[in-house]
Amino acid sequence: MTTPTQWYETHRELLDAAVAAAGARDYWSNYPESPSKSVYGADAAPAGEQAFRALLGADFPLDQPGELGRVATERSPYGLELGVRYPRCDPQRLVAAARAATPAWRDVGPHGRAGVAAEILRRINARSFEMAHAVQHTTGQAFVMAFQAGGPHAQDRGLEAVACALAAQTRIPATATWTKPQRGGDPLVMTKTSTPVGRGVALVIGCTTFPTWNGYPGLFASLVTGNPVIVKPHPGAVLPLAITVRVAREVLAESGLDPDLVTLAAEEPGDRVAAVLATHPDVRIVDFTGSSEFGNWLEANASRQTVVYTEKSGLNTVVVDSTADYPGLLRNLAFSLSLYSGQMCTTPQNIMVPREGVDTADGRRDPQQFAADLSAALDKLLGDPARAAGTLGAIVNDGVMGRLTEAAAMTPGVVRPPGEVTDPAWPQAGIRTPVVVALDADDDKVYTREWFGPVSFVITTGSTEHSLALFTETVRHHGALTATVHSTSEAVLTAARRAALDAGVHLSENLTAGVFVNQTAAFSDLHGTGANPAATAALTDDYFVSGRFFTLQARHA
Amino acid sequence: MTTPTQWYETHRELLDAAVAAAGARDYWSNYPESPSKSVYGADAAPAGEQAFRALLGADFPLDQPGELGRVATERSPYGLELGVRYPRCDPQRLVAAARAATPAWRDVGPHGRAGVAAEILRRINARSFEMAHAVQHTTGQAFVMAFQAGGPHAQDRGLEAVACALAAQTRIPATATWTKPQRGGDPLVMTKTSTPVGRGVALVIGCTTFPTWNGYPGLFASLVTGNPVIVKPHPGAVLPLAITVRVAREVLAESGLDPDLVTLAAEEPGDRVAAVLATHPDVRIVDFTGSSEFGNWLEANASRQTVVYTEKSGLNTVVVDSTADYPGLLRNLAFSLSLYSGQMCTTPQNIMVPREGVDTADGRRDPQQFAADLSAALDKLLGDPARAAGTLGAIVNDGVMGRLTEAAAMTPGVVRPPGEVTDPAWPQAGIRTPVVVALDADDDKVYTREWFGPVSFVITTGSTEHSLALFTETVRHHGALTATVHSTSEAVLTAARRAALDAGVHLSENLTAGVFVNQTAAFSDLHGTGANPAATAALTDDYFVSGRFFTLQARHA
Repeated sequence: MTTPTQWYETHRELLDAAVAAAGARDYWSNYPESPSKSVYGADAAPAGEQAFRALLGADFPLDQPGELGRVATERSPYGLELGVRYPRCDPQRLVAAARAATPAWRDVGPHGRAGVAAEILRRINARSFEMAHAVQHTTGQAFVMAFQAGGPHAQDRGLEAVACALAAQTRIPATATWTKPQRGGDPLVMTKTSTPVGRGVALVIGCTTFPTWNGYPGLFASLVTGNPVIVKPHPGAVLPLAITVRVAREVLAESGLDPDLVTLAAEEPGDRVAAVLATHPDVRIVDFTGSSEFGNWLEANASRQTVVYTEKSGLNTVVVDSTADYPGLLRNLAFSLSLYSGQMCTTPQNIMVPREGVDTADGRRDPQQFAADLSAALDKLLGDPARAAGTLGAIVNDGVMGRLTEAAAMTPGVVRPPGEVTDPAWPQAGIRTPVVVALDADDDKVYTREWFGPVSFVITTGSTEHSLALFTETVRHHGALTATVHSTSEAVLTAARRAALDAGVHLSENLTAGVFVNQTAAFSDLHGTGANPAATAALTDDYFVSGRFFTLQARHA
Repeated sequence: MTTPTQWYETHRELLDAAVAAAGARDYWSNYPESPSKSVYGADAAPAGEQAFRALLGADFPLDQPGELGRVATERSPYGLELGVRYPRCDPQRLVAAARAATPAWRDVGPHGRAGVAAEILRRINARSFEMAHAVQHTTGQAFVMAFQAGGPHAQDRGLEAVACALAAQTRIPATATWTKPQRGGDPLVMTKTSTPVGRGVALVIGCTTFPTWNGYPGLFASLVTGNPVIVKPHPGAVLPLAITVRVAREVLAESGLDPDLVTLAAEEPGDRVAAVLATHPDVRIVDFTGSSEFGNWLEANASRQTVVYTEKSGLNTVVVDSTADYPGLLRNLAFSLSLYSGQMCTTPQNIMVPREGVDTADGRRDPQQFAADLSAALDKLLGDPARAAGTLGAIVNDGVMGRLTEAAAMTPGVVRPPGEVTDPAWPQAGIRTPVVVALDADDDKVYTREWFGPVSFVITTGSTEHSLALFTETVRHHGALTATVHSTSEAVLTAARRAALDAGVHLSENLTAGVFVNQTAAFSDLHGTGANPAATAALTDDYFVSGRFFTLQARHA
């Protein structure tokens, strides 16, 4: 057995570095993003694939309370037969087990909890290849992206949450002496102890596209702040979170703790386990990534004492005014639209171009020309099928496919119809290139709705000023996770920064090279914000962790 | 004109010291609590009284948007004719004015906002004698207490909120450079700026007993995090907050800012201005101190995007097991029950004594004897009418008087009936001594209800173990702001600490001297907690400030 204190000592340097990095916001990463032999060892890739294959068509090894049976609900967008059978457990029993495990977890204290969490992450990192296959065959991400976004990048986001939770819980010292001078007498002296206690049972509701990347911040923030966590995966993307839960339970048990501090709540579609758990009186923390419809329902229906962190949908916007590097702008934007077929909550949807055109080094390009240039950049990026498949990944489900079809039928606006790509390795995979549709600013009925997937609009506006006004107006009302501006004018950039603050969204300016608006870096970029309706908090700042625990004091003479 | 940056420079040392003190949790205070000439000057007391008297029977000097007329709603518990007429303003106009003032306030940044807030507090502190009279004649607190709790102690709590808000907003640096190494190429470099933006219009709903002490944390936390604040005082205690708002508006105007960043929403009783404002779509932050009924209503009915901080009612509990200083215990507890006639959210109500009695140096005292001893201690403390009046203050309203009468009729349980005290200086004041009623553990219908005011119960339990179980059970369900244990046994103290963590309440142990459970010290003691139903947050920790703003980033190459 290794005690939580021992895990803390083992990972102390890492945790100190992570806390410092979250404060500095420079580039910092603990888990190498490259799936190379030189980093992970020659054996890691085949061993990971073997571990993944061994899980298929079998009962997933999880022994949890209240098991009612097994469910297999996943379908690989790549066409691989999965058939992994997960325990379907009585939600009431999961909550009861979580509650029973809580007092001992509280007694571990913030440092020991952070140590345990760091060890969980270390073991998850060691399984990054296994995880990559699990992510690829549930989300449809291409393998390298599945490795990076589902593995090291998610692990970094998890560690960031651990660091923020540890820092937040230790800001008030565990012990303090209070000495108040008294006129003409001895001072009053009191000893005061401060103990962080968790808010209650935490629920993490996973999404189908980024189960680990979006799931880890809430999972680790809740766990490290002293709460047991029930992980309710999307029925279409269970495996990445099942592996995660399994590793967590292993580490907890080895640490002499109750493994029921982390459980998996797999379900048959239609069981509504998320709703049942989110409204359970003992569930006090909910993290959710997914549709605005259910996110809003959770915010409205969770009990008054429950804190709800949601990341929902929005209208990611690009305001194009002028550029010093038009080819770079097009390349960068084409990649952003193509990556994982636009199935990212950060993919741009509404691209606003002024009627008079975009000012470039080669003269003005009006909206029609801009849309054609963007289409050409997409064609170029996606011209080679093998490379295209590696960028696009597969369409995750029929909902995305349906929106794509709907957008492709928007004659005469369609500038670039979607195309099909065949991946020889996965001939059954549904792989599509993005559709680009030209709209006018008046077509707000179309573009104020989120078209999650590879659907983007080039919207003609009256001017850049009009673009910025539309941007602020639409994002204030409908939300956004990302925003971009392209301009060579300091005045326009200043106006855009102000518009982004008014809209309540993070802004990227003049991205023309190797940084893409879709991607945020843990320990430096905040992802999301509660300042617009697309989310209630950012990954990861103090607000994201501080509602998950309370500090209780005791004082005595 | 003095700019916010200049105010920050003026108060920089103070703000640095306050941030450090909030981290250290030792005794620290910026505003002297002694109303003495040596501290505030020989002229301060008469000048303050004169300033107070000049306000009576007149229009209060506030020039706010949307004034519909004037209202005078206060009645001094000491019988002084007040007749101060406050502007009654259209709530919609106050919100619109607040919104219009917001962007410039955002642009000031966290340091400038903290500087402005520190200057507001400096000027409020200079008016502490005027404030003391205002607090005395609205709340019924005796003068010295009104001075301390309504003046310097409230100012310290306000400064604590300023410090926490400043620290929280500057934890992510305003500018950072991100440099990510690339294999075989130049690193990716991005510059990132982070800007705190307020959540939206803030509403502070004041209470009738501690309008400044309970109002300042929310007011200053919201203001410093970039939000305009509308202060809705209780109709019975307007003046202390009206003076506060007036000072804030003066400083804002002198700083070149829109004074409508802070406005007063006085009302006729029955206008329901608090409900109207709390459900206004632009109001995004609500701070409330008062009844559980309205607090729960606010939590349930404010919009999904609104963060609600409430402090409501509860069952403050004392578990008496044993003591090394029985006379000290009795003196301390008697004072806690008597101070401001128990009209504090922190006053003990449920005093649990085991059937076998309290172990003291002079032997065991059974519950009946203990209740008699406590009554005797009360009689002794309150034997001298002048001193008693200075401790008890006046009964604030008919609600408290009604509960006192109801409790006094609980024959045969009444151990100590309430008494009347006459203050020669204020013959019309309703001054009452506490009632003590003996109950059994089975009388939970009586003692699981809050009896706000000078009503306490000595409850016979089966054992200290039973007391602790009852304590945990009742506080988990009904909430509490304070808890106390008296024991000489380490095992009992350990069990009590665990019970307090389970109940989710701060604990005071063995208070027998000059520290009272009613009182918490800013910068050291947290007041309240969201861990039980009596409140949703503590004064003042990160959670109390971090939901009031979001940090928005911009990044560029």
